[in-house]
Amino acid sequence: MTHQADAYRIKAEPYYQAQGREVALFEAAYRNRLPVMVKGPTGCGKSRFVEYMAWKLGKPLITVACNEDMTASDLVGRYLLEGGGTRWLDGPLTTAARIGAICYLDEIVEARQDTTVVIHPLTDHRRVLPLDKKGELIEAHPDFQLVISYNPGYQSLMKDLKQSTKQRFAAFDFDYPEATLEATILATEAGVAPELAARLVQLGQTARNLKGHGLDEGISTRLMVYAAKLIRDGVDPADACRMALVRPITDDADIRATLDHAIDAIFA
Amino acid sequence: MTHQADAYRIKAEPYYQAQGREVALFEAAYRNRLPVMVKGPTGCGKSRFVEYMAWKLGKPLITVACNEDMTASDLVGRYLLEGGGTRWLDGPLTTAARIGAICYLDEIVEARQDTTVVIHPLTDHRRVLPLDKKGELIEAHPDFQLVISYNPGYQSLMKDLKQSTKQRFAAFDFDYPEATLEATILATEAGVAPELAARLVQLGQTARNLKGHGLDEGISTRLMVYAAKLIRDGVDPADACRMALVRPITDDADIRATLDHAIDAIFA
Amino acid sequence: MTHQADAYRIKAEPYYQAQGREVALFEAAYRNRLPVMVKGPTGCGKSRFVEYMAWKLGKPLITVACNEDMTASDLVGRYLLEGGGTRWLDGPLTTAARIGAICYLDEIVEARQDTTVVIHPLTDHRRVLPLDKKGELIEAHPDFQLVISYNPGYQSLMKDLKQSTKQRFAAFDFDYPEATLEATILATEAGVAPELAARLVQLGQTARNLKGHGLDEGISTRLMVYAAKLIRDGVDPADACRMALVRPITDDADIRATLDHAIDAIFA
Amino acid sequence: MTHQADAYRIKAEPYYQAQGREVALFEAAYRNRLPVMVKGPTGCGKSRFVEYMAWKLGKPLITVACNEDMTASDLVGRYLLEGGGTRWLDGPLTTAARIGAICYLDEIVEARQDTTVVIHPLTDHRRVLPLDKKGELIEAHPDFQLVISYNPGYQSLMKDLKQSTKQRFAAFDFDYPEATLEATILATEAGVAPELAARLVQLGQTARNLKGHGLDEGISTRLMVYAAKLIRDGVDPADACRMALVRPITDDADIRATLDHAIDAIFA
Amino acid sequence: MTHQADAYRIKAEPYYQAQGREVALFEAAYRNRLPVMVKGPTGCGKSRFVEYMAWKLGKPLITVACNEDMTASDLVGRYLLEGGGTRWLDGPLTTAARIGAICYLDEIVEARQDTTVVIHPLTDHRRVLPLDKKGELIEAHPDFQLVISYNPGYQSLMKDLKQSTKQRFAAFDFDYPEATLEATILATEAGVAPELAARLVQLGQTARNLKGHGLDEGISTRLMVYAAKLIRDGVDPADACRMALVRPITDDADIRATLDHAIDAIFA
Amino acid sequence: MTHQADAYRIKAEPYYQAQGREVALFEAAYRNRLPVMVKGPTGCGKSRFVEYMAWKLGKPLITVACNEDMTASDLVGRYLLEGGGTRWLDGPLTTAARIGAICYLDEIVEARQDTTVVIHPLTDHRRVLPLDKKGELIEAHPDFQLVISYNPGYQSLMKDLKQSTKQRFAAFDFDYPEATLEATILATEAGVAPELAARLVQLGQTARNLKGHGLDEGISTRLMVYAAKLIRDGVDPADACRMALVRPITDDADIRATLDHAIDAIFA
Repeated sequence: MTHQADAYRIKAEPYYQAQGREVALFEAAYRNRLPVMVKGPTGCGKSRFVEYMAWKLGKPLITVACNEDMTASDLVGRYLLEGGGTRWLDGPLTTAARIGAICYLDEIVEARQDTTVVIHPLTDHRRVLPLDKKGELIEAHPDFQLVISYNPGYQSLMKDLKQSTKQRFAAFDFDYPEATLEATILATEAGVAPELAARLVQLGQTARNLKGHGLDEGISTRLMVYAAKLIRDGVDPADACRMALVRPITDDADIRATLDHAIDAIFA
Repeated sequence: MTHQADAYRIKAEPYYQAQGREVALFEAAYRNRLPVMVKGPTGCGKSRFVEYMAWKLGKPLITVACNEDMTASDLVGRYLLEGGGTRWLDGPLTTAARIGAICYLDEIVEARQDTTVVIHPLTDHRRVLPLDKKGELIEAHPDFQLVISYNPGYQSLMKDLKQSTKQRFAAFDFDYPEATLEATILATEAGVAPELAARLVQLGQTARNLKGHGLDEGISTRLMVYAAKLIRDGVDPADACRMALVRPITDDADIRATLDHAIDAIFA
Repeated sequence: MTHQADAYRIKAEPYYQAQGREVALFEAAYRNRLPVMVKGPTGCGKSRFVEYMAWKLGKPLITVACNEDMTASDLVGRYLLEGGGTRWLDGPLTTAARIGAICYLDEIVEARQDTTVVIHPLTDHRRVLPLDKKGELIEAHPDFQLVISYNPGYQSLMKDLKQSTKQRFAAFDFDYPEATLEATILATEAGVAPELAARLVQLGQTARNLKGHGLDEGISTRLMVYAAKLIRDGVDPADACRMALVRPITDDADIRATLDHAIDAIFA
Repeated sequence: MTHQADAYRIKAEPYYQAQGREVALFEAAYRNRLPVMVKGPTGCGKSRFVEYMAWKLGKPLITVACNEDMTASDLVGRYLLEGGGTRWLDGPLTTAARIGAICYLDEIVEARQDTTVVIHPLTDHRRVLPLDKKGELIEAHPDFQLVISYNPGYQSLMKDLKQSTKQRFAAFDFDYPEATLEATILATEAGVAPELAARLVQLGQTARNLKGHGLDEGISTRLMVYAAKLIRDGVDPADACRMALVRPITDDADIRATLDHAIDAIFA
Repeated sequence: MTHQADAYRIKAEPYYQAQGREVALFEAAYRNRLPVMVKGPTGCGKSRFVEYMAWKLGKPLITVACNEDMTASDLVGRYLLEGGGTRWLDGPLTTAARIGAICYLDEIVEARQDTTVVIHPLTDHRRVLPLDKKGELIEAHPDFQLVISYNPGYQSLMKDLKQSTKQRFAAFDFDYPEATLEATILATEAGVAPELAARLVQLGQTARNLKGHGLDEGISTRLMVYAAKLIRDGVDPADACRMALVRPITDDADIRATLDHAIDAIFA
Repeated sequence: MTHQADAYRIKAEPYYQAQGREVALFEAAYRNRLPVMVKGPTGCGKSRFVEYMAWKLGKPLITVACNEDMTASDLVGRYLLEGGGTRWLDGPLTTAARIGAICYLDEIVEARQDTTVVIHPLTDHRRVLPLDKKGELIEAHPDFQLVISYNPGYQSLMKDLKQSTKQRFAAFDFDYPEATLEATILATEAGVAPELAARLVQLGQTARNLKGHGLDEGISTRLMVYAAKLIRDGVDPADACRMALVRPITDDADIRATLDHAIDAIFA
């Protein structure tokens, strides 16, 4: 068990710049073993935050990327055929409940309802996980905590968490880092000069203003790190920005023209 | 069998505050072995009530969280491959019928029709469960009772119980506890002062008035316990309320502003 | 075979109060081995009638609760893996055809088309059941008869029997028992005084008048037996009626008020 | 092979009254091994005709009731697990092609497209059936013929045979027998007096005039045989007609009144 | 391998009457190993043409009738359970790629997208077939060629080949043979006199003019061969034409009257 | 491992004509191991470019043609039954991550969401692939890179990459080569004279102008190579162009007439 837990422990401190009081608040939620929901747009650092907290709390972290074809068995476990019989294989949620890990269900809204319902008994006063197919009832390890992420931008009538699921979590709002902090992140992650980082942040903020005016989402910090890395590698800044910041996110000719124009203005 | 029943017995008295005559009425329903339907919004204490009754009646409790991907086999049982042959594994409903447990199907409306139809012969004068795939007809243990929960707020034309299912149950209506009772619950569960509990209840009732005016559901007692625990742990009351009561249940900016304003007013 | 047939034989005479000439007409249909369709609203006694006829005719009865996830294999049978090979397991319809039972398919409209088509060769002059997957053609036992139930209230364009299925059955119409008869049933089943039974029937008829005016179905005789049992057990009549007759069937506030008002008037 | 063919041979001459030249025309189609499509409303004698022709031609008959859940494997065959390996089991179509039977696919329109496409190579100049999963190409036995039935009344945009399937068959139109013939059939099948048979036919024709005016289909000859049998058994004619001819086919109160009125008029 | 290829070789020259330069053009496409798409209405000779070309080029031919339930595994192959382990079974496409056959996918539009995508790497410069489930990459035999058929009459927004599939094929248009040629075909295939063949062609052309005016498709050459065979067998020409040309293709009373009238006029 | 990598290495330099700075930019992206998205219409050379880059970088290339029936298991791997137990078989994505290949997911938009979500942990700072079903976490080989292709012409509300996927890639735009370059490609690939190649390019550009005016897509360079090969083989230029450029891409009579007219004009 200890050995298995070690395999999921974060080896090195992940690079994380706090945006507010979120670190202390998460620690309080963890002390009370409250299930946590992390909300925010794509690429703003939600997964990095969870990774950082797991490192800071010294707990193993098991991450699952949810998707609409994932079944409850993918989370809980299943029987494998072996040597003429069957062997039970714990799923990632079961493993986390057994070894006392933080279980992080990324983009939970994508999952089918059987996935979301399966976490209910783990997220109320019972803190148990019934393995119906195995006829076993697991009591969660005292260190176990469930964390889910949620992008409100995708929320729709068709695909949203039920209130009976939502009302099991304490929630944290995330957004893109404010300008100075984001420039620091770019400079640190890509190894570029502060002045270049600042220009990229300026460009990113221009693009984020287009959200809802032709862009579905703003440009993520992740893509800005891509652009910074390409420029540091010797690629022409305008080429790097087009390739990393514009081409991936839109095919709309007008939006592209607007963004290309901004690139030329900022890197002229 | 006795051993198996013991595994499902509630060890300690669950904390439960009666809202009315529901305990005596449930006992009468159980004496007549009437199937019971527990109705009410999320997080108002339905599951806790069933757990409490199982403890009070001294009967084992088997809980199943229903979901739309659950099949009749998940309830009744299935064959497993083993040692070159197959072995039958009872599902939770079958186990309950054999050992004389209270079987609690949580959020039955979520299940597919094959699940709901499977309970029909167990809920009329026959009290039998045919295991068609095994060719066995189980007569329910005299102590067996079926309990289902049902959230009328989710009821729609597309997803509702059929009348031929509904008309097999005696029904109990639940709602959030009235103010004094709810404050007692918060004080007891989270270990906070009565005065703080009262303020949280006041806030919860404000939010519940928004149901149907921008909120799908009111704030559950469960979330209010979360907030109380965080405050007791030293978190600033406004932070705790935003994180436990507001952020999880809505992304609507107006509703958030209204609720944040109420928090500031109550904890000023 | 005899042994298997005995397992499905009704041991004791089921309590059944004839509503008209249905017993003699069913006997005539059985003498001519005509397939029979029993029509009527939920909880009016269709299943009890079939059980009674099986007892009166001294034939085994095999009942199947149909549902939309039931496959033809669930009725006919399937291969099971066993000891390195496969073993055929007869389904309930096949068993009935072999041992000469009455096979009762409850709520046939719920089943998928493959279920309904599978009964065609058993319900015309051929009286055979081809087990395609086993390569066997079963000639039905001379005592075999097929009975199906059908609730016209559910009939819709999307879900109805095909004419090519309907035109294989002689049909019986059922409805709630008339008042005197229903009171006798309540008194007998729940052991209550005739006067109380009469009041409950009066209440039930009030509710049935609301069908189509806010209620999908009338109150079944079954629920009225529930209420009678609770009252006999000492529950306050108004509590018993609300719990057994009103709360299960509607969440509409107006309808509830109307029914609660009727309860108060009748049990004042 | 001969043994298997015998199992599918019709033992006794089926009772069949020719409506026109269909027997000679079917013989010509069979001599040229043309695939045949038999069209007409439910219960008018299509299946009986095919059975009769198989008897007259002295060929085995394999009948398959098609349904929307039937797969190509149900027709062609599949591998079964056995003794640590797999064994191929021919489906009914494959058996028919091997032994030279007439294969009758009843209500082909109900089947999914993979069923209908599977018959294509058997119904053109190739007369082969590729068992893709077995890697075998079967050349049909010289006696093999494919016959399908088709009810034009069900034909819709959503569910119709493709022209590429239709244009592989010679087609026969069927309808209810004309009055004198139908009365002869009733008298012969149910053993009733010609005068009673004539009255039932008169009633049947009244009902058939309502097709398209509230009835989806006319009353089949099969149901009229039911009514005749019940009357011969001593059941009151009006009861027998209501039970066998009216109740099974409609729940519409007006249509029922019209038909009940006709019954009273004819049997007064 | 040679043995397997022989099993798929066309033994005798198929009867084929060229309509234009299609034989020489197909030979050029085959010399350059261009994938070929054969377009045209049902029953106009597309499959016969492909069979003829396979015979003329002396290559084995593997034909697959596509359908919407066919999976990529049905084309490529799958693992079978055998003797305690698994054995890979090549699908028809894989076999064709290995032995250098012409693989003919009939009615490709019917197939699901995974089938159509599976042919992409076989139809560009790579000429490979990855067996992902087996971890093997097959280089197509130099003689391998892919041919698909396509009926533009079925083409709709919902079910059409993607441009990324279409743009991998050279295409041949087919239509019904012109009158003299079609009469020759009827006379040859059915062994009837040229004068009768000419009358049938005249009737067929009348019917084809109704396409789009009540008929979905014209009458195929195949059905005209049916009619000719029945007449040669002694069936009355009007009976034969109704049975082979009219009844199979339409149930519309007006269209039937028009066609019956044409039959009477031509065979009077 | 080395051996397996060699199996996926490109043996000979693929013929590729650069359209701009894409080769140098891809090299920079690869040096920073940025995931890459290649955008453009069908048949414009996207796959050839990726193949060329794999050859130039000296890395193995594993290509997967995505489709809507492909599951995450098809990419990641699955258990096979073997010798009484199960054996894990790596999928192509897992193999690529282990051996340090470039993994090219062609037409990623066709895949279901579980496929696209599965690549998330491989395309951020983690560079890991969790094999949930095996309980193994693979750290990608330092040489591993993910490349996807994307045809913006297919993009729709129903089927588009999520922003949380898009924002993980640097993107390259592709289009048909400009005229001189495309003529060089035709001359080189098909071995035709420059003058003929130029005429074909002229024809192709005419057709591309019809995109959006009756044509869904322009004519691909691939089809133009087909036409050139047929002409070099002796086929009449007009026949070759109709067969390779017109017939495959449209059945619209007007568009065909326009294109046929252009062919006659250019090859007159």
